[in-house]
Amino acid sequence: MNSLIESIPNFSEGRRQDVIDRIVEAVRKTPGLAVLDLSSDQNHNRSVLTLAGTPAGLHEGMLALYAACIESIDLTRHSGEHPRLGAVDVAPFVPIRGATMKDCVELARALAAEVSKRHALPVFLYEEAASNEERKNLANIRKGEFEGLGEKMKDAKWAPDFGPSSPHPTAGATVIGAREPLVAYNINLGTNSLEIADKISKSIRHLSGGLRFVKAMGVRLEDRGQVQVSINMTNYRKTPLHRVFEMVKGEAERYGVSVVGSEIVGLVPSEALQAAADFYLRLENFTPEQVLENRLAAAAASE
Amino acid sequence: MNSLIESIPNFSEGRRQDVIDRIVEAVRKTPGLAVLDLSSDQNHNRSVLTLAGTPAGLHEGMLALYAACIESIDLTRHSGEHPRLGAVDVAPFVPIRGATMKDCVELARALAAEVSKRHALPVFLYEEAASNEERKNLANIRKGEFEGLGEKMKDAKWAPDFGPSSPHPTAGATVIGAREPLVAYNINLGTNSLEIADKISKSIRHLSGGLRFVKAMGVRLEDRGQVQVSINMTNYRKTPLHRVFEMVKGEAERYGVSVVGSEIVGLVPSEALQAAADFYLRLENFTPEQVLENRLAAAAASE
Repeated sequence: MNSLIESIPNFSEGRRQDVIDRIVEAVRKTPGLAVLDLSSDQNHNRSVLTLAGTPAGLHEGMLALYAACIESIDLTRHSGEHPRLGAVDVAPFVPIRGATMKDCVELARALAAEVSKRHALPVFLYEEAASNEERKNLANIRKGEFEGLGEKMKDAKWAPDFGPSSPHPTAGATVIGAREPLVAYNINLGTNSLEIADKISKSIRHLSGGLRFVKAMGVRLEDRGQVQVSINMTNYRKTPLHRVFEMVKGEAERYGVSVVGSEIVGLVPSEALQAAADFYLRLENFTPEQVLENRLAAAAASE
Repeated sequence: MNSLIESIPNFSEGRRQDVIDRIVEAVRKTPGLAVLDLSSDQNHNRSVLTLAGTPAGLHEGMLALYAACIESIDLTRHSGEHPRLGAVDVAPFVPIRGATMKDCVELARALAAEVSKRHALPVFLYEEAASNEERKNLANIRKGEFEGLGEKMKDAKWAPDFGPSSPHPTAGATVIGAREPLVAYNINLGTNSLEIADKISKSIRHLSGGLRFVKAMGVRLEDRGQVQVSINMTNYRKTPLHRVFEMVKGEAERYGVSVVGSEIVGLVPSEALQAAADFYLRLENFTPEQVLENRLAAAAASE
């Protein structure tokens, strides 16, 4: 079976539609990849592109993305609510099918080497591709943003993993890495008490003693008069959706509050939903090969 | 998006491996279809092939299947536990993606016309393609089997929908049709009382007052010392898995019996499992477009 990898580059343009179109078009015409989603935010002045493809297809497509972004985005004239370090701010690779995390780390390193050479651009590696513990966390690398980058990189501790030891004048730096698929999952509560949502968030999240691959915080849903436990699932294979849902339901019950619903934001791998069906239906000996669509994908890939 | 249809031809050979191989190979080399599964049963002396493809691909592939089966299967020398009417006993078409039931009925009629002409083979249409109410049910058409077919067809009521009014000497007749995807789903109970499994089966199945698209019976699992509610779900979209599971769980509780597990036999469309996740996780505004693999399939089909 052909290996399939996802990449979710975030680039620093969310307002000029002609520039966004040109960047996406440069990527789209690359063979061996598909553009699955594009989401641009004017307040953030930032776009998030979701790509899937073969390792070779993604390598070429991402090179096209870097060339197009560096040509048309000037960070010295960029403002937006979302923190950012460069024209292409961050680009993770994610194993989807028939690919390992190691494949994604290799892809990240190969892209980092080529991009730094072609554009004299400093590259930091993060998450599973990080060269040390501190760089695993994107927030640490991005702290100070584009404006503080020149000063930050004077410290040898912040020498880039690839490329020159000072920022690109208009494109800043970029962060490339490899990580597990991330699922954005929110659970809505039948109360307007943010305090309860916050307490439940604290009980389930890793930071404060909860589940290993859960980040969570309470959020107010003004238009509904309700609150939400807003969750980032950083490894849905090891910490599955249903375990989080059941834990939130149990914690909410303790406050006499019901779970009125949950929602998945953006894309979710089919496997994450199948795991929930497997749990609740108490399936015995279920394998992904029993899913018709997986059989189809395998047949298509073996042709 | 390209329309994708499934076909599950059942042919009357489950013992001679060289014959089975030759038949499957004749189908496999047809462009525009994929062989997803083959399951042969020696006791039944019968094989079930699962194909998926474009309408044109399946039409050609099924013509190849009929030619190969009629050439190498002689019903006058065939015995097996499973009832059968012909060399290719039954061939349903099932809408999977971007195809309607109407497309499948058209495909069934076009294949029936061509097969009857090429091989002087009587064809009966069943389920959604049936020409009258009685023929909707495969069991009615197949009653009397190959051995009784000559006599049965003397009655004008059993004139075929296509082809000659008497059986093919060695290939009998064939049944072609269109239906919803069928999911074979079993629920295992923590008791060895077949009586309880039978009572629960009766409570959930359509025949005796239960759910519209459920067929069910109690079955003994000798090796486990347990019993099973063995279910055919004839329309998982309208009668979903989770509703059947919850109903069986409730009925079992009334006898003080637990549901120890459930199992899906063979293939299941990913949508059927997603519906269970949607129900139990109380998802709000979930759409199939949020499933990464669906996005991929759409991107691949639009290329």
